Amino acid sequence: MTIKLIGYSSSPSTLRVIATLNELGVTDYSLAPPENFSDLKSPEFLAEKNPFGKIPVLIDDGFTIYESRPIARYIVAKYQGKYNKKILIPDDIQKAALVDQYASAESCYYDPPLATIIFQELFKGLGGGGGPDAELVNTQLEKIAKILDIYERILEGKQFLTGSDISLADIFHYPTTAYTAKKHKDLYESRPNVKRWIDNIAKSEGVKKTFEDYPVPQF
Amino acid sequence: MTIKLIGYSSSPSTLRVIATLNELGVTDYSLAPPENFSDLKSPEFLAEKNPFGKIPVLIDDGFTIYESRPIARYIVAKYQGKYNKKILIPDDIQKAALVDQYASAESCYYDPPLATIIFQELFKGLGGGGGPDAELVNTQLEKIAKILDIYERILEGKQFLTGSDISLADIFHYPTTAYTAKKHKDLYESRPNVKRWIDNIAKSEGVKKTFEDYPVPQF
Repeated sequence: MTIKLIGYSSSPSTLRVIATLNELGVTDYSLAPPENFSDLKSPEFLAEKNPFGKIPVLIDDGFTIYESRPIARYIVAKYQGKYNKKILIPDDIQKAALVDQYASAESCYYDPPLATIIFQELFKGLGGGGGPDAELVNTQLEKIAKILDIYERILEGKQFLTGSDISLADIFHYPTTAYTAKKHKDLYESRPNVKRWIDNIAKSEGVKKTFEDYPVPQF
Repeated sequence: MTIKLIGYSSSPSTLRVIATLNELGVTDYSLAPPENFSDLKSPEFLAEKNPFGKIPVLIDDGFTIYESRPIARYIVAKYQGKYNKKILIPDDIQKAALVDQYASAESCYYDPPLATIIFQELFKGLGGGGGPDAELVNTQLEKIAKILDIYERILEGKQFLTGSDISLADIFHYPTTAYTAKKHKDLYESRPNVKRWIDNIAKSEGVKKTFEDYPVPQF
């Protein structure tokens, strides 16, 4: 039975889920973008799909789940090891805990400034909301610079956050990074450990396929 | 071997971990509050405990992990079922995914406004930072009110977020709620499903013990 992923291929959160599916070799899914943004606020969507009125939402064999990171974890729990040998969350309790730890850092510290920058610079204009709030973008650029200084130390001598292999935590970081890496190249280029890490994620087969299928829009 | 929890009993994030330990009946732990806030920014703490310079940090049998929610998940993975029969994350993949889904809602939507309100109204003054920024507090009160309207719908006919039993997702929500429920009573009292839910969590044995041991400061 085909997995249905409600979301937009231009949404970093949706791409987080698609990259996870691709990394694990899950091919039996279809992307179902809502026709209009306003559909996300319809009584039906709020009651049956996601009460927060957001994408992505995954429907798998009658089971509905929302929020990109829990969706990705669900995909790992159900499909890891089924189609290929890639391990995104190891069985070992301590190793899994470190994946969790870096996933939490992504959600709490890494994502918020980048999500604001992406919204201001890319999506706000598309939605007819006018140009970006330059002061807000600058504040968020300062925030992410400080966070990336910490990542630079964390990534010293490592290929990925938890060591030599890619994990779900690395994948979580990639979409917002890809969306900001061209316009704000210096954020990543000026930090060699961060740069190596990002390049390593980009080269991973499932991530590579995701961003070949859905290239980052120019902005 | 005693688990060491570096944190403050007045920190909602630390209380998130203590409540998890108490719910699972883990008693062999000690709370180790840093002597000064500035210790969290020392080169030793940043290198060996948490590069983000924050508490809580857990050290269990030589294994160090930071970020309250991953710490709590680690405790569940290692100790659930060992000292009592409480299940905070079920084995079933779909049920676990729903715990994850609501845990993500907590971290992404529920926590940020409440954490800001708590910082402004309680901790800012303690740190000598002057009084709360009233405008910022009001904006965050409006934000959490909208989020609680969504929770009111999610909790219709339910005792807890995932149904009739408490889960880790409920516990994650409780500390910031307890810290704001007295001063901003109307937020919770005006929403009967939310009110019932909060009362249910408060009555759960481990949560109850946590907030008897470490009562919420008056502010």
